[in-house]
Amino acid sequence: MSLIVQKFGGTSVADTERIRHVARRVADAYARHPEGVVVVVSAMGKTTDRLVEMARELNPEPIPREMDMLLATGEQISIALLSMALQQMGYKAISLTGAQAGILTENVHTKAKIVNINTDAMRRFLAEGYIVVVAGFQGITADHQITTLGRGGSDTTAVALAGALEAPVCEIYTDVDGVYTTDPNVVPEAYKLAEISYEEMLELAQLGAKVLHPRSVECARKYKTVIHVRSSFNSREGTYVKAMKDLEVHRPVTGVTLDSKQAKLALRDVPDKPGIAARLFGALAEAHISVDMIIQSVQDDATNDIAFTVHEDDLNAATAITRQVGEEMGAGETVQDPHIAKVSIVGVGMAGTPGIAANMFQALAEGGINIQMIATSEIKISCVVSRDQARQAVQLIHDTFLIPEIDDELALSASGSSEGLA
Amino acid sequence: MSLIVQKFGGTSVADTERIRHVARRVADAYARHPEGVVVVVSAMGKTTDRLVEMARELNPEPIPREMDMLLATGEQISIALLSMALQQMGYKAISLTGAQAGILTENVHTKAKIVNINTDAMRRFLAEGYIVVVAGFQGITADHQITTLGRGGSDTTAVALAGALEAPVCEIYTDVDGVYTTDPNVVPEAYKLAEISYEEMLELAQLGAKVLHPRSVECARKYKTVIHVRSSFNSREGTYVKAMKDLEVHRPVTGVTLDSKQAKLALRDVPDKPGIAARLFGALAEAHISVDMIIQSVQDDATNDIAFTVHEDDLNAATAITRQVGEEMGAGETVQDPHIAKVSIVGVGMAGTPGIAANMFQALAEGGINIQMIATSEIKISCVVSRDQARQAVQLIHDTFLIPEIDDELALSASGSSEGLA
Repeated sequence: MSLIVQKFGGTSVADTERIRHVARRVADAYARHPEGVVVVVSAMGKTTDRLVEMARELNPEPIPREMDMLLATGEQISIALLSMALQQMGYKAISLTGAQAGILTENVHTKAKIVNINTDAMRRFLAEGYIVVVAGFQGITADHQITTLGRGGSDTTAVALAGALEAPVCEIYTDVDGVYTTDPNVVPEAYKLAEISYEEMLELAQLGAKVLHPRSVECARKYKTVIHVRSSFNSREGTYVKAMKDLEVHRPVTGVTLDSKQAKLALRDVPDKPGIAARLFGALAEAHISVDMIIQSVQDDATNDIAFTVHEDDLNAATAITRQVGEEMGAGETVQDPHIAKVSIVGVGMAGTPGIAANMFQALAEGGINIQMIATSEIKISCVVSRDQARQAVQLIHDTFLIPEIDDELALSASGSSEGLA
Repeated sequence: MSLIVQKFGGTSVADTERIRHVARRVADAYARHPEGVVVVVSAMGKTTDRLVEMARELNPEPIPREMDMLLATGEQISIALLSMALQQMGYKAISLTGAQAGILTENVHTKAKIVNINTDAMRRFLAEGYIVVVAGFQGITADHQITTLGRGGSDTTAVALAGALEAPVCEIYTDVDGVYTTDPNVVPEAYKLAEISYEEMLELAQLGAKVLHPRSVECARKYKTVIHVRSSFNSREGTYVKAMKDLEVHRPVTGVTLDSKQAKLALRDVPDKPGIAARLFGALAEAHISVDMIIQSVQDDATNDIAFTVHEDDLNAATAITRQVGEEMGAGETVQDPHIAKVSIVGVGMAGTPGIAANMFQALAEGGINIQMIATSEIKISCVVSRDQARQAVQLIHDTFLIPEIDDELALSASGSSEGLA
């Protein structure tokens, strides 16, 4: 038995009844981990949205320092209320703001990185038998300025605390049962994974799986902290995110993701001379527009087409920039297509299993789905397809690679459970 | 021209529209006080009530440390939003929590006293041209624990900051125009006082005038800070609370107060021997019941009646204690009267003007109002009367001592205005 860190998100503490429920979960953990429980909580349900709305009413572009001052209150409310609920149940509990918990960040507002965690105060309270309740998402600079960690910040706080306190497992409680092979709203046969590697989870998170933020996964990988993603509404085992040796991996594909917020831009007839791509993507970067996939195809007449995808919210800004750069460079027309989606498969076993890409393209072809763009990495293959065929594409790919019966059994045996053998 | 401290209460910052309005008031002050403006704000409108309600849902008796952790968020939200509103108007503004403003308190929760204010951070920001927006009601202990100052805490913060920063005037913005001779809801002829002494304001505050908390008045007296109580909804001059020499005081009576939350208890036929009063009031104090007025009258047969007043909420608890002590001491019956009220007059000029008490009693007698108890101090006379005659009593007393025309003129000349002479 050992110290454990638990994190409960905004949905899990959305009202006082749910906070009481969380207190019971924490108390259960305390019974199993007498060495200590550290709980990280987010702001209650819609608190952050409500604060942001008030801020925008007063200032459409609030200064980041003041946004942090404002938003940090959300978690502070949660820690006080959860501590009160635990105290009412007879437990010693103490709430700590990010500053009080010793979470030192760099001097950057709304997206600060943690630079150090001074665990003295936490260790002192743990030694005195307190359940320590820490505000997620926030920290303090050396100059006593309140900072926040940006999206997924509470997950990052929890994983970083687990690393600093040398807790072997960090439990992330959320409103889903764990990490699924794909979105069950798209594919009814989607099933929960018993375990997944850091690398796969990173790819899934970057591809839009909302269950964990990439930063928290990176942090866990760095400190070798096992993340246990599980539901705050039931006590079933969730998904363990952990280091996995290649030998442990019995499946070529771990998950399928769908990103329907992408849009495509193409610049036609680009003269075939150096520096044009650098010019175009430099201009987009200056405008803070993230470009995802890029394809350049050479035509017969020594001109190129350059096609790329951006977030659909950036489409109009990106179009204007592309059109201007195109004119300056003597290229042809700029064409936009907002009706696309990106479908991806992720799996560390992919590299050792030939033919995965071919199988994916084949599945889409048999469904009559045209692939517009392709991008690959060692553990990922992404295809851009028409948005109205995207859900069908996910279903077809899931059918091809992820057969629940077999994989479930493999997953169970891989996680060391003997249940499958009974 | 000099530094000024302004304080806006919860009603003044109840929503974003009112916060914008406050920002304009602050900007006006900045134009008149280029040396600097420090603004203290309370939590928005009903925020504190809402937080307290959630706390009680989880824990009927929340630990004070966690209440402070919870409630301190209210002011933190206000300072961030007000700073954003000022920034939107083009001003340099910075929000500071109690801790960041250097407000060090004793290590007591929910009612901490300020022990020191380190003004370094505030002075640095003021020197850089920032409008400094400070969270009222809160501070921090030497051990980094968040504390709150209890009722009236934001007023106390503002006055203490004015003292520490050597600002000659602290403006307290509220939802009334200033300090009135009595409650205008009771006496339509009540009028605003141009100025009032610290001592009178203290008595009025202790007698239930809600416009300022006694602690803030005590603090202002200590540092000789002038408090200007004024409305946040108009730009009229309010009331100056300040040191006043006897010669400046042209009126014997400054204000009339009504406290309708009192109840009376009497213990009959108390044997005339030492220690009984000590026994009774000791028992009440142990039960945390505050006793206000006490009257002991000797009867012919060498027994006493002891009558006293308590807050009506404490009446039943006080009755039970009195009955028990009475039985132990061989006294007679305990009689309660919940239908009373306390009417008081306050004025530092009273001491130098003979016959004030007689005039007060005469006014009540002419109105057919029976006086049940009397208590006096150097600058105050209080009478207990039947609650259903209390408003009439206030009207009669106000008619006797506070004639608007004459007093207004005196007040104007006393405040140095030449308007009355024009």
